[in-house]
Amino acid sequence: MASRWGTGRIEAFSDGVFAIALTLLVFDLVVPASAFANLWRGIAHEWPSYLAYLTSFITIGGLWMAHLGIFRRLQSANPAIMRLNLLVLMGVAFLPFPTGLMAKAIRDTNAERAAVVFYGMTLLVISILFRALWDAIVRHPELLDPNVTTEEIRPIRRAAMPNIGLYAAVVAVALLFPQAAVFGYLIIATVAVWRAHGDESPSGRRARPPRSEPDRSGRAG
Amino acid sequence: MASRWGTGRIEAFSDGVFAIALTLLVFDLVVPASAFANLWRGIAHEWPSYLAYLTSFITIGGLWMAHLGIFRRLQSANPAIMRLNLLVLMGVAFLPFPTGLMAKAIRDTNAERAAVVFYGMTLLVISILFRALWDAIVRHPELLDPNVTTEEIRPIRRAAMPNIGLYAAVVAVALLFPQAAVFGYLIIATVAVWRAHGDESPSGRRARPPRSEPDRSGRAG
Amino acid sequence: MASRWGTGRIEAFSDGVFAIALTLLVFDLVVPASAFANLWRGIAHEWPSYLAYLTSFITIGGLWMAHLGIFRRLQSANPAIMRLNLLVLMGVAFLPFPTGLMAKAIRDTNAERAAVVFYGMTLLVISILFRALWDAIVRHPELLDPNVTTEEIRPIRRAAMPNIGLYAAVVAVALLFPQAAVFGYLIIATVAVWRAHGDESPSGRRARPPRSEPDRSGRAG
Amino acid sequence: MASRWGTGRIEAFSDGVFAIALTLLVFDLVVPASAFANLWRGIAHEWPSYLAYLTSFITIGGLWMAHLGIFRRLQSANPAIMRLNLLVLMGVAFLPFPTGLMAKAIRDTNAERAAVVFYGMTLLVISILFRALWDAIVRHPELLDPNVTTEEIRPIRRAAMPNIGLYAAVVAVALLFPQAAVFGYLIIATVAVWRAHGDESPSGRRARPPRSEPDRSGRAG
Repeated sequence: MASRWGTGRIEAFSDGVFAIALTLLVFDLVVPASAFANLWRGIAHEWPSYLAYLTSFITIGGLWMAHLGIFRRLQSANPAIMRLNLLVLMGVAFLPFPTGLMAKAIRDTNAERAAVVFYGMTLLVISILFRALWDAIVRHPELLDPNVTTEEIRPIRRAAMPNIGLYAAVVAVALLFPQAAVFGYLIIATVAVWRAHGDESPSGRRARPPRSEPDRSGRAG
Repeated sequence: MASRWGTGRIEAFSDGVFAIALTLLVFDLVVPASAFANLWRGIAHEWPSYLAYLTSFITIGGLWMAHLGIFRRLQSANPAIMRLNLLVLMGVAFLPFPTGLMAKAIRDTNAERAAVVFYGMTLLVISILFRALWDAIVRHPELLDPNVTTEEIRPIRRAAMPNIGLYAAVVAVALLFPQAAVFGYLIIATVAVWRAHGDESPSGRRARPPRSEPDRSGRAG
Repeated sequence: MASRWGTGRIEAFSDGVFAIALTLLVFDLVVPASAFANLWRGIAHEWPSYLAYLTSFITIGGLWMAHLGIFRRLQSANPAIMRLNLLVLMGVAFLPFPTGLMAKAIRDTNAERAAVVFYGMTLLVISILFRALWDAIVRHPELLDPNVTTEEIRPIRRAAMPNIGLYAAVVAVALLFPQAAVFGYLIIATVAVWRAHGDESPSGRRARPPRSEPDRSGRAG
Repeated sequence: MASRWGTGRIEAFSDGVFAIALTLLVFDLVVPASAFANLWRGIAHEWPSYLAYLTSFITIGGLWMAHLGIFRRLQSANPAIMRLNLLVLMGVAFLPFPTGLMAKAIRDTNAERAAVVFYGMTLLVISILFRALWDAIVRHPELLDPNVTTEEIRPIRRAAMPNIGLYAAVVAVALLFPQAAVFGYLIIATVAVWRAHGDESPSGRRARPPRSEPDRSGRAG
């Protein structure tokens, strides 16, 4: 006997956390009133905030796509998956904190290195948790959608998961060149979004009958 | 072979971002404690904040309706749609920043013009991204609901999309008359909400059988 | 020909706005660091904030239940309903602003009256918008679920709608006795939640077959 | 005749409140600009904030899982359940307030005890409300899914509910040893998440046919 949860509310709850974390990032964008005398310059002066915003937004977007990639193959969750998913969400919900720190610390020679390394370590931990989540699933193939074949599992992991090794490397770079590392995080996130892919289907026709997907968009006739 | 995502969680995630961005706008409404001696005057004094709030609320509401208009015709998403949708959401989530800036800068002759132009440029970029999203869909008609006919595609674009040309024009106006431009943004948003429309159906009867729509309202008997 | 939207995403989006507005209210609860020397007293001293929090939380909860009551009878939405729903959501999303104002103004003889009247006027406007939303639906009975009979429409309105007359009366009271009026708002909200009711069903058995409700809770076997 | 609500939108709304309350906790994590001279020390210095964050995050996560455990057995809600669910959500949405207080008060000998006791009392009240919610359901077994047997009801309560007795005990401990009590709250929450379980199913095969669960993940083929 094993304990099982359906994935419906897990996905709804997770979507909520991803969407909120993403949207709260905007609170770190502030132009002080003292910069209103020359507002264009004041706006431009905040570039570290925009860079941090962009990096975290795309990172969370990519993590959401990875989450999508995992859960659409999942039929039901066991306790290990519930707990690891909660930890992944904790990492995502935590990210606005190191993001704000990094935005404020760039251009401050004392604080810059620590802030950029701390940010990267957060991403590294999230990557490791994501990997652990996928590994927990692979250990229980009965939780997977029966359409997922064993041959698919490995490429899914490679394609869908945030790259632990890359994050470790960029954190190492951050120790020497903090500002370069920020662009490193941005590039990793952008490539992750770029490479994410859904189900393979012969293009131009539908592989599954339309009724397998509920009409959530609430179309009316 | 082509990569495909279903639209269920994309819609749920997007609804989350739209709803949060909309609701966070309230944080820009503040009456300073110094105005408590004459609170009605203090409340009235904040009119630029209410104008900015109203404009951004209706704008995001209209963008949400445009998003609804796109995704209810979509059967599945390809990677280009996923990426463009993420960029659209970034624009929407970013909007509270120029909104707050505009609210604070109105009545400040140094900052007003820059703030209103910056706000309008954000809306212009969102409009362009929305257009790109729709164009990416039109290039792959196999992603559309089979009930959408080729003749419908053009009017959908015209009706559903935020108007790039109008935004460009109002940004130009903002260079000369910033306060007038704010009302211009408000009017564009109001007209967009007003003109948005759903599926055409012979009035008074249902075109599709009720079971095509899931009973999400969770009715119980 | 008439323009129609399904209700699925309207409900999801509205649920988001209600849930966020509700949860953001917590930001008005603050005990200043200066009160840490005697924290229990500092916590107790903030009672106007708790009163405002409680009132707005129950009010928004009651409005959500009224929204539930409307939309579960609705089969599809027309443009008027879309626009009025957006205005209702704007009122709900705006409510944290007068709530915070009221919390800060109670015990300030200059500001108290204005803050409590302003808060009540916001609730009054929301009530009027809700009524307009229901009226717009009643004018188009073809939008209603075919199971809703004409005889049900009147009691639904009486039971589900926030009471315009009561809010007007309490706003009048607020002009003379602001603190009493706050309790008036709280009582109206509590009664609204208390009186809200769902579908009538013969108790003890299910009136509709279970398959009429999708298993959104995502049960797994 | 009895009044009934379906559970679809109640779950969606509740998921929203849980997800938002969880994600807002990040706003209590702040490193003051004055600590930027030695940022690693500044980050480490905020450990009470991280401890409070971790405790509240896992607590809300566990409460969400308890909510999941209740509502997946529920077929429809009656007015008592609606009201108690709203009160539970009020407790959850309120939690960021005592969390922030506790984070700031740890290490302040005057305020620490009051803050930790106040935090624990909030958790105690939430536990009591959760228990009342489950009791309200048990009094009306016709609301439960017909697959839930009478023998299951008792263990569900024991397994799914936050433990009132434990919270009362830790609040008592907090009167003497506030810092130890914080770890007590953390341990209770962690154990609750650890012990939560879904439906029992013979491992390795599905007990219910797949069509009982809607494909909310929006898979496309």
